[in-house]
Amino acid sequence: MSPVIDGLQYANWSEKIFREMRAGGVDAVHATITYHENFRETVLNIEAWNRHFERHPDLIFQGFTADDITLARGTGRTAIFFGSQNPSCIEDDIGLVEVLHRLGLRFMQLTYNNQSLLATGCYEDDDTGLTRMGREVVAEMNRVGLVVDMSHSGERSTLEAIDHSTRPIAITHANPAAWHAALRNKSDTVLRALTGTGGMLGFSIYPHHLKNGGACTLNEFCEMIARAADRYGVESLGIGSDLCQDQPDSIVEWMRTGRWTKRIDYGEGSADAPGFPPMPDWFNGNADMANLTTGLRDIGFSKDDTAALMGGNWARFFRDSFGRAV
Amino acid sequence: MSPVIDGLQYANWSEKIFREMRAGGVDAVHATITYHENFRETVLNIEAWNRHFERHPDLIFQGFTADDITLARGTGRTAIFFGSQNPSCIEDDIGLVEVLHRLGLRFMQLTYNNQSLLATGCYEDDDTGLTRMGREVVAEMNRVGLVVDMSHSGERSTLEAIDHSTRPIAITHANPAAWHAALRNKSDTVLRALTGTGGMLGFSIYPHHLKNGGACTLNEFCEMIARAADRYGVESLGIGSDLCQDQPDSIVEWMRTGRWTKRIDYGEGSADAPGFPPMPDWFNGNADMANLTTGLRDIGFSKDDTAALMGGNWARFFRDSFGRAV
Repeated sequence: MSPVIDGLQYANWSEKIFREMRAGGVDAVHATITYHENFRETVLNIEAWNRHFERHPDLIFQGFTADDITLARGTGRTAIFFGSQNPSCIEDDIGLVEVLHRLGLRFMQLTYNNQSLLATGCYEDDDTGLTRMGREVVAEMNRVGLVVDMSHSGERSTLEAIDHSTRPIAITHANPAAWHAALRNKSDTVLRALTGTGGMLGFSIYPHHLKNGGACTLNEFCEMIARAADRYGVESLGIGSDLCQDQPDSIVEWMRTGRWTKRIDYGEGSADAPGFPPMPDWFNGNADMANLTTGLRDIGFSKDDTAALMGGNWARFFRDSFGRAV
Repeated sequence: MSPVIDGLQYANWSEKIFREMRAGGVDAVHATITYHENFRETVLNIEAWNRHFERHPDLIFQGFTADDITLARGTGRTAIFFGSQNPSCIEDDIGLVEVLHRLGLRFMQLTYNNQSLLATGCYEDDDTGLTRMGREVVAEMNRVGLVVDMSHSGERSTLEAIDHSTRPIAITHANPAAWHAALRNKSDTVLRALTGTGGMLGFSIYPHHLKNGGACTLNEFCEMIARAADRYGVESLGIGSDLCQDQPDSIVEWMRTGRWTKRIDYGEGSADAPGFPPMPDWFNGNADMANLTTGLRDIGFSKDDTAALMGGNWARFFRDSFGRAV
């Protein structure tokens, strides 16, 4: 049987959520462990994860290779794969790419909305593409097996990352802009370049990325996936729910502002609605994962294609991506 | 055939030395990667090692488990196992024990001559034994598989570490004080407690630990080992040469003073002889490792006991020590 894998979550991790992952049959999750944190602060976050792993060995463990997906299924647990949504964790030090990979980091975004040392975020006015350091870091990520994730990057930077990377990259959590025009959703040009080079797109259920926001129906969401499968091929697609389960609104403010501004930045929100947007009623947490399977079957996906979308494709991508370049 | 393992070196690592390791048939080395460095600085040292591993994959690679000794022999390379001579690398953060173990740290001294957050060094006037944090850290080191090394610790601290640790510990580089009275050499009480609990002693060739210093003959050195084997059993003994090959004298000053004093501290040296002491003519570097085998055979050790002393015992200890507690 094919595993169930969520290509991105940033929950307020707790035993409750780990139990819901089991209830939802989630075999593996790419979990964001850091945004704006520097290296030492990222290590503190890893230490906090180590405490989760030590306290709940019956529910979760850290995933390092694709074999851990199989181990998770075989032992009724969820494998947690680490990722970073910003390159702050490597500071200005390319040597930290290999160090963080050794500590289990498996995805790293080159930018989070803003310009970084590596590339341009999707909220900047001008996208200048990969920087000098950005090209070096992508090559190093390719070498050690750390996946380039361009979910929050600008168009030109994303295209240059796809072009420069010698291994397929990922957009772990976004939707086609043609379906819902949001700064965070991706153009047809990007999605063709991504999927044409073996890269993966994870469909986001974060309401700002959905047509009609939280009112988007399961059927509409799955219809979007069906049209993307027609256009880009089902094998390049998965789920990256962007689920921020049980997070307080203070966290979305941290995600948006970090330490780069003293002012409020509302990001995809607004002064009227600064907090996390309400989720669709068909996806409030990990326990609802089976609803996606039902929705995909109802829209007409075969059993095999549904399994591929729910995790089989991510499993293949994990297997091809997390080891040293050969 | 049994492997050749050196239980401690702190060389000025270079391609030249890596080639000498091959010439000397050294299959594995416990290499000191850090003394007084904090966590971030230790990570910088790991990054420098990663560059060595990337540049010289035909000569060396990082060792993580005892299987890597076999891999080293099978591929004609030397496995480098990381160690720290002081707990500065974990700062005041017990969570860094697991993080550094993940990065490959396999030995950590609880002290380097001075009082640390964990225990008392062998140069302090009063040894108060394991601190509150010391007891917690030893338990955590036991859990993850990071070996407690008491080479530079005081008598009481060493005995308490042996007693408190639920797994055998090591004194990777020291000699019996009964043979040569030096602050760094170990009492019969310590050596009985160490070896009586499955711990390992690595014999040091650092001249300050030798009778007659650099003038100590190979025969005298091997005679000391023979008497120790009579007293403590050959199975608890190995080599821990403390070789500081190609290091400039500025390094021994750093080892002794770190950042804890603004004055000069001569440690085992003196104002008249502040630098590294001259090595015995039978052990100037890794290429001389075979001289030890010859010396041990000449003093009367059997072929099997010689193999055990030259690395077989360390290999068994590595196998029992580097994994999670069961």
